[in-house]
Amino acid sequence: GFARIDHHRALRNGFPEVVYCPNKTVPQIIAIMERVAAHASKVLATRATPEVAAEVRAALPSAVYHEQARMLVLPGAIEVPPPATVGTVLVVSAGTADLPVAEEAAVTVSEMGSPVERLYDVGVAGLHRLLANQRQLYAANVVIVVAGMEGALASVVGGLVARPVIAVPTSVGYGAGFGGLSALLTMLNSCASGVGVVNIDNGFGAGFLAHLINLRGLERQGV
Amino acid sequence: GFARIDHHRALRNGFPEVVYCPNKTVPQIIAIMERVAAHASKVLATRATPEVAAEVRAALPSAVYHEQARMLVLPGAIEVPPPATVGTVLVVSAGTADLPVAEEAAVTVSEMGSPVERLYDVGVAGLHRLLANQRQLYAANVVIVVAGMEGALASVVGGLVARPVIAVPTSVGYGAGFGGLSALLTMLNSCASGVGVVNIDNGFGAGFLAHLINLRGLERQGV
Amino acid sequence: GFARIDHHRALRNGFPEVVYCPNKTVPQIIAIMERVAAHASKVLATRATPEVAAEVRAALPSAVYHEQARMLVLPGAIEVPPPATVGTVLVVSAGTADLPVAEEAAVTVSEMGSPVERLYDVGVAGLHRLLANQRQLYAANVVIVVAGMEGALASVVGGLVARPVIAVPTSVGYGAGFGGLSALLTMLNSCASGVGVVNIDNGFGAGFLAHLINLRGLERQGV
Amino acid sequence: GFARIDHHRALRNGFPEVVYCPNKTVPQIIAIMERVAAHASKVLATRATPEVAAEVRAALPSAVYHEQARMLVLPGAIEVPPPATVGTVLVVSAGTADLPVAEEAAVTVSEMGSPVERLYDVGVAGLHRLLANQRQLYAANVVIVVAGMEGALASVVGGLVARPVIAVPTSVGYGAGFGGLSALLTMLNSCASGVGVVNIDNGFGAGFLAHLINLRGLERQGV
Amino acid sequence: GFARIDHHRALRNGFPEVVYCPNKTVPQIIAIMERVAAHASKVLATRATPEVAAEVRAALPSAVYHEQARMLVLPGAIEVPPPATVGTVLVVSAGTADLPVAEEAAVTVSEMGSPVERLYDVGVAGLHRLLANQRQLYAANVVIVVAGMEGALASVVGGLVARPVIAVPTSVGYGAGFGGLSALLTMLNSCASGVGVVNIDNGFGAGFLAHLINLRGLERQGV
Amino acid sequence: GFARIDHHRALRNGFPEVVYCPNKTVPQIIAIMERVAAHASKVLATRATPEVAAEVRAALPSAVYHEQARMLVLPGAIEVPPPATVGTVLVVSAGTADLPVAEEAAVTVSEMGSPVERLYDVGVAGLHRLLANQRQLYAANVVIVVAGMEGALASVVGGLVARPVIAVPTSVGYGAGFGGLSALLTMLNSCASGVGVVNIDNGFGAGFLAHLINLRGLERQGV
Amino acid sequence: GFARIDHHRALRNGFPEVVYCPNKTVPQIIAIMERVAAHASKVLATRATPEVAAEVRAALPSAVYHEQARMLVLPGAIEVPPPATVGTVLVVSAGTADLPVAEEAAVTVSEMGSPVERLYDVGVAGLHRLLANQRQLYAANVVIVVAGMEGALASVVGGLVARPVIAVPTSVGYGAGFGGLSALLTMLNSCASGVGVVNIDNGFGAGFLAHLINLRGLERQGV
Amino acid sequence: GFARIDHHRALRNGFPEVVYCPNKTVPQIIAIMERVAAHASKVLATRATPEVAAEVRAALPSAVYHEQARMLVLPGAIEVPPPATVGTVLVVSAGTADLPVAEEAAVTVSEMGSPVERLYDVGVAGLHRLLANQRQLYAANVVIVVAGMEGALASVVGGLVARPVIAVPTSVGYGAGFGGLSALLTMLNSCASGVGVVNIDNGFGAGFLAHLINLRGLERQGV
Ligand SMILES: Nc1ncnc2c1ncn2[C@@H]1O[C@H](COP(=O)(O)O)[C@@H](O)[C@H]1O
Ligand SMILES: Nc1ncnc2c1ncn2[C@@H]1O[C@H](COP(=O)(O)O)[C@@H](O)[C@H]1O
Ligand SMILES: Nc1ncnc2c1ncn2[C@@H]1O[C@H](COP(=O)(O)O)[C@@H](O)[C@H]1O
Ligand SMILES: Nc1ncnc2c1ncn2[C@@H]1O[C@H](COP(=O)(O)O)[C@@H](O)[C@H]1O
Ligand SMILES: [Mg+2]
Ligand SMILES: [Mg+2]
Ligand SMILES: [Mg+2]
Ligand SMILES: [Mg+2]
Ligand SMILES: [Mg+2]
Ligand SMILES: [Mg+2]
Ligand SMILES: [Mg+2]
Ligand SMILES: [Mg+2]
Repeated sequence: GFARIDHHRALRNGFPEVVYCPNKTVPQIIAIMERVAAHASKVLATRATPEVAAEVRAALPSAVYHEQARMLVLPGAIEVPPPATVGTVLVVSAGTADLPVAEEAAVTVSEMGSPVERLYDVGVAGLHRLLANQRQLYAANVVIVVAGMEGALASVVGGLVARPVIAVPTSVGYGAGFGGLSALLTMLNSCASGVGVVNIDNGFGAGFLAHLINLRGLERQGV
Repeated sequence: GFARIDHHRALRNGFPEVVYCPNKTVPQIIAIMERVAAHASKVLATRATPEVAAEVRAALPSAVYHEQARMLVLPGAIEVPPPATVGTVLVVSAGTADLPVAEEAAVTVSEMGSPVERLYDVGVAGLHRLLANQRQLYAANVVIVVAGMEGALASVVGGLVARPVIAVPTSVGYGAGFGGLSALLTMLNSCASGVGVVNIDNGFGAGFLAHLINLRGLERQGV
Repeated sequence: GFARIDHHRALRNGFPEVVYCPNKTVPQIIAIMERVAAHASKVLATRATPEVAAEVRAALPSAVYHEQARMLVLPGAIEVPPPATVGTVLVVSAGTADLPVAEEAAVTVSEMGSPVERLYDVGVAGLHRLLANQRQLYAANVVIVVAGMEGALASVVGGLVARPVIAVPTSVGYGAGFGGLSALLTMLNSCASGVGVVNIDNGFGAGFLAHLINLRGLERQGV
Repeated sequence: GFARIDHHRALRNGFPEVVYCPNKTVPQIIAIMERVAAHASKVLATRATPEVAAEVRAALPSAVYHEQARMLVLPGAIEVPPPATVGTVLVVSAGTADLPVAEEAAVTVSEMGSPVERLYDVGVAGLHRLLANQRQLYAANVVIVVAGMEGALASVVGGLVARPVIAVPTSVGYGAGFGGLSALLTMLNSCASGVGVVNIDNGFGAGFLAHLINLRGLERQGV
Repeated sequence: GFARIDHHRALRNGFPEVVYCPNKTVPQIIAIMERVAAHASKVLATRATPEVAAEVRAALPSAVYHEQARMLVLPGAIEVPPPATVGTVLVVSAGTADLPVAEEAAVTVSEMGSPVERLYDVGVAGLHRLLANQRQLYAANVVIVVAGMEGALASVVGGLVARPVIAVPTSVGYGAGFGGLSALLTMLNSCASGVGVVNIDNGFGAGFLAHLINLRGLERQGV
Repeated sequence: GFARIDHHRALRNGFPEVVYCPNKTVPQIIAIMERVAAHASKVLATRATPEVAAEVRAALPSAVYHEQARMLVLPGAIEVPPPATVGTVLVVSAGTADLPVAEEAAVTVSEMGSPVERLYDVGVAGLHRLLANQRQLYAANVVIVVAGMEGALASVVGGLVARPVIAVPTSVGYGAGFGGLSALLTMLNSCASGVGVVNIDNGFGAGFLAHLINLRGLERQGV
Repeated sequence: GFARIDHHRALRNGFPEVVYCPNKTVPQIIAIMERVAAHASKVLATRATPEVAAEVRAALPSAVYHEQARMLVLPGAIEVPPPATVGTVLVVSAGTADLPVAEEAAVTVSEMGSPVERLYDVGVAGLHRLLANQRQLYAANVVIVVAGMEGALASVVGGLVARPVIAVPTSVGYGAGFGGLSALLTMLNSCASGVGVVNIDNGFGAGFLAHLINLRGLERQGV
Repeated sequence: GFARIDHHRALRNGFPEVVYCPNKTVPQIIAIMERVAAHASKVLATRATPEVAAEVRAALPSAVYHEQARMLVLPGAIEVPPPATVGTVLVVSAGTADLPVAEEAAVTVSEMGSPVERLYDVGVAGLHRLLANQRQLYAANVVIVVAGMEGALASVVGGLVARPVIAVPTSVGYGAGFGGLSALLTMLNSCASGVGVVNIDNGFGAGFLAHLINLRGLERQGV
C-alpha cells in the first residue's frame, strides 16, 4: 500500500496520526482516515478544501467539516475519555485575514480536548483593542498568537503574559512579507521571552503543542 | 540614563529582566545588573565572554560565572522562594560543539527554578545513542533539543515523546548550514507535531519557555 | 532543427539522452523521442503529464506510461542486453506525498537495468516504521532516500547503513519549507557521512546515479 | 582629484554633502571635509571611529566629536541662520544596544536645526514603559523609531500616533535576525499606516528625513 | 464577530481604518465598510478587483470605484471638514506598468484631503523627460516616487529635491527583479538623503504617509 | 562526559567516528581521538589548523598531520586489513585555490583504503587542460570534482564520464559567489546526469562517499 | 496620457523605445506602438503572447509577429538605412527549452541591423556538440550564450573564444534552479574572462547589447 | 605541481592567464607569475595586498605595483606589439569608496592596450556632476560604470549613451546593501538597454570585456 499507518502514535504521543490533505488524492485521504479510525477515537484531516470535504463526507458521512478551519473530523472506533484539563488555551489573532489559521489552531485544541477561547482582530495597529482584553489574556494557561504581515503581536503578547506563548506566522500580506517570512523572523527574534514558534500558517501544529503544554498540569496530578 | 529598567517584569512574567551582554559596555552591564538586583531575587546576564565576566565579577564579587554557558548570575536583594516544580526539563544535544548553547539552556532552566537533566552528544548519525536512553526521554516533562548542522534530532525526538519539545537550532556547521539557517528550517518544518522553535543559538529563550511550561502544573495546584 | 540529438551519449555514459518534457511542445517531444529511439534500445521521457502522455502515445503507440512516476518509456531500434547487475537499489520515502518523486527514481533505476525495491511512508515522525524494516535497509547495495518537509530521513538512514545513500529533497511542504529548500539544506548538512544529494524533486537524477553506482561491482567482474 | 565635491547640494536640498567615513582614508576624509567646509555652514561626517576622529581632530581642531553617535561636526566658512522650526523630532529606541544608531539620528536632527527629544529603552517586551510616556509621543511633530531584533516597536508607535513615523531597523540581534533583515522586514510590513523606512542602521538618513518633514510647516509660513 | 472595528483610529491618527480586500470575503468587506462608515466621514477599501467592486457597489450603491487605483470609497455618516492643506503632493512614476500603484497613492492622498499632482512615465532610461519637468518637481511639498525594475528613479529624484521623498518599489519586472526586491533594495540604499521607503506595491501606505507629512505645516498654524 | 563516542560506527558503516575540530577545545579533540583509537584501526580529525595539529601531536606523537588537507591521522589499537579495492578514485579540481578541499577528499579516500589519483587545476576557462587528460578521467571508477566560483567543471566532467561523479562546491570566489552558493547551485542543477553533491567545502564527505561507492564491487565478490 | 514617449531615444542610443508588453493593456500597447512608429523606422514589442499579437495585428495589420521570439515588429514612418555592419552575432543556446529566449535575442539583433547566426542545443552535457562547431564560434564577432539550469555553457564558450560574450541566464529548470537564479550566479562568477551578463530571460537586452558591440568597428570606419 | 598553466590562453583569447591572489600562498603566486611570464608579454596579478606585493616584488623586482588598483604587472619574455586601438574606454564611478574597483578596471584596460579615461565621483545624488561631463561620456567607445550602494548610476549612464555599458556593482554600502547585492540587482534590472553586468567588485572582468569590445573595430580593419 501507499501508506504505512502509524498506529503507535496515539500511544506514543497521545493522539493518532493526523492527515495532511494537500498532495494526496481523495481516495488516499479516505483510505487513510478509515484505517486510522479503526484504531483511534477520532481522526483529524487538515487543509481540506470544500471540494475535498464534500467528497470525503460522501464516503464517510459521519465526518464533520469545519469550513473556516478547513478541517475534517471523523469519529473513530475506540472510546477514549477526554483528558480532564482545567486550564484554557487562548487563540489571539491580529486581523480578519488570519482567521483560517486561527481557526485551524482553535479546532485542533478543542478536538484534542482542551478548552479554547478566541480573541480575534486585535492587531497592534490598534493596541487598545488588546489592552481592553487583558483580563482574558491573563486568565489563559497557554496563549497562541496568530499574525501575518509583520507579526508584531507575538512580541507584545509575550511581553504582557507570564505563560507560554506559541506564535504562528501567517502568509497574509504582500511584497516584502515574502509569504510569511517577515512574520516568521519577527517571531523568532522576539525581544519578549517565552515565545516558541511554529511553521508559517501551521495552526494545527500550534494547537497540538498548546494542548500538550496544557496537559502538563494534569498528568502530574494523576488525572 | 541609557536604560529604562523593566522592574515590572518579575511581576508580569515571573522573572526579572535578563541582560544580553553583546553591544553593551561593561559599565552598562554592571549598572543594569545592580539596578535590577535591587528589586529582584537574582539577575542573569547572557553571552558574557570570560573577559567581560572577569570585569563584572571584579565589580560585583557575588556574581557567579558559568563558563560553558557564558552566563553570569548575581544574587539580588529580594528573597523569593523557589517555585515548587515537580517535573524535570531534559536538555538533549546533538554534538559536542552544541555544548555552549545547551548549557545556556540548562543553566537558565535551573536558575529559574526547574530541575534539569542533560542528555548530550546523541545526534542522529548514531541513533542507537538516543534509543539507548529512551527511558530518560520519556521521564521528562518538557524536552529541549539543541542541534546544529541539519538539526534532524528535533524531529526524531518529537516523534518519540508525547511532551512539549522546544527546539534550538545552533549555528554549528559550515557551508550550506548558513549560520544555523539549515537547522532552523528543519525544526520549523518538523514532520513531528508538538515542536516549538526559538531563534538560532537561543539557549536562554528555550530554557525560559521550558520553565514556563514546566510551571503549568503547579500553578493550577495552588502551589 | 531545434534539437541537436546527443547520439554519443549511450556510448559515453551508458544510457541515451533522456527527454525532460516541460517547456517543450508535444511535437518536439515526439520528434526527439523518435530520433533518439532510432539509435538506442529505449528512450525515457520525464515529467510527462497525463495529457502529454496521451498525445505522445497516440503518435507512438509502443510508448508505455508510468502514471505515478509521470514517465514515458519508448522501446528503441537497438537491442542491448540488460546489464547483469546483482545488487539491489532500495528507494525509501518519508510520506505519501513524496510518491511521484520516489516512483520517478524507482522506474528510472528499473528501466536502466538495476533491480529495485521500495520502502515507502517511513518518515521519522514514526521512527519504529523504519526500524522495523532494517533488514531490507541493510540488504540494499545503494539506498535512495526521498523526503520533503524537513528531510530528516536522509540523516537517519545515512547513520544506519554503510552503503552509498542518494538523498532527494522534495518540494512537499509549505511555509518555511520554501519549495524544498529546507529539505535540501538538511540533506547537504547531514551529520551522517556517505550521503550525496541531487536537485529538489529530481527522482530521475537519483535513480540514474544509483544505477551507475550499482554497476560498479559488475564492470570489475568483467560482466 | 579623487572626489568631486557636490557644492550645489546645500542649495538643492538644504544641507551640504555629508561624509560617510568607512572605505575612505583619513587624508581623504580630511580633504573632503575641508573643501566642503569652505562653502558651507558646517560639515557632518558619520561612522567615524574614535581612532579616525582623533586623527581628524588633530588636523581640524575645530571639529567636534559625538562619540556615541560616531559623528564629527566641523564648523564651516558660511554663516547660515538656523531654520526657525517650531515642532520637535522625537527619537524613540527599543534597547540599550540601539543607542549608537539612535544617537546618530538625534545628532543629525539637531545639527540640521530641529529640536530633538529622546525616549530610549522602551521596547515592546515591557510595553508599559512606552505607554507611560504617551504624552511625549503625542507632543512630537515627527517620530523616529530605532529598533533591532524583531523591530516591533515601529508598528506599536505607528499605531499610536497620527504623525509621520520614520523607522530605522538596526543590526542588533543574532541568528535569524540576519544582521537587521528581520527588523527591516517588520518595519516594511507594518500593519500601522504612516511609517516610512530607511536602511538598516541608517540613523543619519532617518534624522535627515525627519528634519525635512519638520521643516514643512515653516516654509509655508514664509519663515 | 470576525472583526473588531478600530473606531478609535480616526481620533488617534486622523483617518478611520482602511479595508484591505484580499483574503476577505465580499460579505466581510461589506460588513466592515458599513460599520466603519457609521462612525466616520468616509471609508476606503484597497486592492478591490473589478468583480469585488461590482458586488460591493450592488450592496452599497453610494460607493465609488476608482478602477486603475483598484480602490472603493464609501461616504460615511459623519461630516468632517477637509483639512485646509496648502502644499501639493506630487506622484512621480517610472513606467506605464507602475500606473496601478501610482494611482493607489494618488487617490489615497486626494481622498485624505491633500491636493495631488501626477508626473508619470519619466523613468531614468530617458532622463530628459524628468529634467524637462523640474519645475513641477520643485513646486511640490512632498514627492512620492513609484518605480519597478531597478527603481533608480527614487535616487535621482531624491538628489534633485529638498523635500521629503516617499519611495514605493513596485513588483513590475521579471527575473532578477524578484517581485520588487530589486527596486526595494535600491530605494533603501539610496545614495540620496531624505528618502523613506514603504512596502513593495504599497501605494496606499505612501499616500497616507505623504498626507501626514503635508499636514505638518497646517497644524502648527492652528488650522 | 561531554562526548558519547559512537563505537558502533565502524561496525555499522565501515569506518569509526571522524572528529570535526572546529568548535572543539584541543583537550576535547585529544580525548575523543584517544577514546575512538582504543576501539578502531585509525582515527581521522578534519579541519585541524597547524596550531591545533601541533598541540594534538605533542600529546599524541603517533598522529600524522597532512597540512594541505588540514587532517590528522592517529593509528588505533585494532588491526584491520585494508579493503581489497581494485578501482581508483580520481580527484579533479578546478583551480589552485581549491587545493585544501581537494586534498581533504584525497587523503580521506586514501586513508579509508581506496587508491586515489589527482588531476588538479583543470577548470573550464582552459578546457583543453581537461580534454588532454581524458584517459585518466575514463580510467577512474569514481570521480570527485572540486570547484569554486561557478563550479561548471562538475557538469563538464559529468557529461564526459559514465561513472558516478561526486561534486564538491568550494567557497572560493567573491561577490555573487556568496561563499560557495553559486557553485553549489550549479552542481545541483547540473544538466549532466550521474552527479551527487555534498556540502560546500566538504572534501571529507566526498571522499567518504566515493570510497563507499568504490567498495561496491568488492563486497559482492566476497572479498 | 498614460505614456510619455521617449522620442529622443533613437537619437540618443541609436534605436527607438521598445515596448515591453506585460502589465500593459492591448489598447496601451497599440497606442504606444503607433506613436513611436510615427517618429521611427520601426517599433519592436517584446513578450507578446499569441493573443496579444493577434489583437495588435488586427489594429495594426502591417505588424509582423515572430511567434517563437514572442515579438512584434511594426514598420515606422521614417526611412533609416540599415547600419553597414560587417561582423556576425552568434546566438548559442544550451537546450530546446531555451529557444524562446534565444529567438528573442536573435530577432532583436537582426531587426536592429546586425547579421545573426544560430547554434542551438549544444549544452555541456554533450560537449562534443559544441566542439564540433568551433569554427562557427571563432568566426563570430560577438557571441550570445543562452542557458538555463546551471548555465555552465557561458563559462565554456567564454574560455574558448577571444570575443565579447553576452550571457543570458534562463528560467528553464526546477527546484534549486530558483527560477534562473542558479544560471545567473554561474554566469556572474564565470571563471572565464570577457563575459557580461544580462537579466534572467532577457534575450532582448542581450541582442541589443550585442548589436551595439558589433557596431563598434563600423563607426570608427566612418560608416 | 599545484598549477597547470594555461599557456594556450594568450592564443585563444588574446591575453595570458591572470593571477587572482587571494587563497594562494606568496610562493604559489610568484611561481605562477614566473611561469606565465616566460611565455607571454606581461602577467597581471589582481587583489594583491601591499604585503603580498612587497614580497612578490622582492622576488621579482621588475614587477610594478598599482596600489589603488591592488594589481601587480610583471613584464614577460615575449615581445608583443600593443594593439592599435583607436577608441577610448571611459571608467565612470559613483563615489570615492568605489575607487579601488574603478582603478582595477582602468589599469586592466590600459595594460591590455586600450586608451582609458576616468570620470570619478559622479553618483546620482548630485546628477549635475554627470550632466556637466556629458561630452566625455559621448566621446567614449565603451563605458564602464562602477557603483555601490544602490548602483543607480548604471541606468542613468545607460539611458544617456548609445555605446556598450559594462556595469560593475561594488560591495560599498551597509545594511540592506548586502555586500553588493543591491547594486548587482539594480544593474541586472536596468530599464536602460545596452548594459552588461559583471560580478560584484570585478573591476578586472569589466576592464577585460571593455577592451575586447574596443578591439572589435580594429580587427575588422585588418589591424
Ligand atoms: N496542517 C498540518 N501542518 C503540519 N503538519 C501536519 C498538518 N496536518 C497533518 N500534519 C502532520 O503531517 C503528518 C502527515 O503525514 P502524511 O503521511 O504525509 O499524511 C502527520 O505526522 C501529521 O501529524
Ligand atoms: N541570550 C539571549 N537571547 C535572546 N534574548 C535575550 C538573551 N539574553 C537576554 N535576552 C532578552 O533580551 C532583552 C534584553 O534587552 P536589553 O534591554 O537590550 O538588555 C530582555 O528582554 C531579555 O529577556
Ligand atoms: N493596500 C494596503 N497596503 C497596506 N496596508 C493596508 C492596505 N489597505 C489597508 N491597509 C491597512 O491594513 C489594515 C487592515 O487590516 P485588516 O484588519 O486585515 O483589514 C489597516 O490597518 C489598514 O490601514
Ligand atoms: N523584454 C524586455 N526586457 C527588458 N527590457 C525591455 C524588454 N522589452 C522592452 N524593454 C525596455 O523596457 C522599457 C519599456 O518601459 P515601458 O515604458 O514600461 O514600456 C524600454 O526602455 C525598453 O527598452
Ligand atoms: Mg482588522
Ligand atoms: Mg559526537
Ligand atoms: Mg504517512
Ligand atoms: Mg533594556
Ligand atoms: Mg514608458
Ligand atoms: Mg589555475
Ligand atoms: Mg537537448
Ligand atoms: Mg562623493
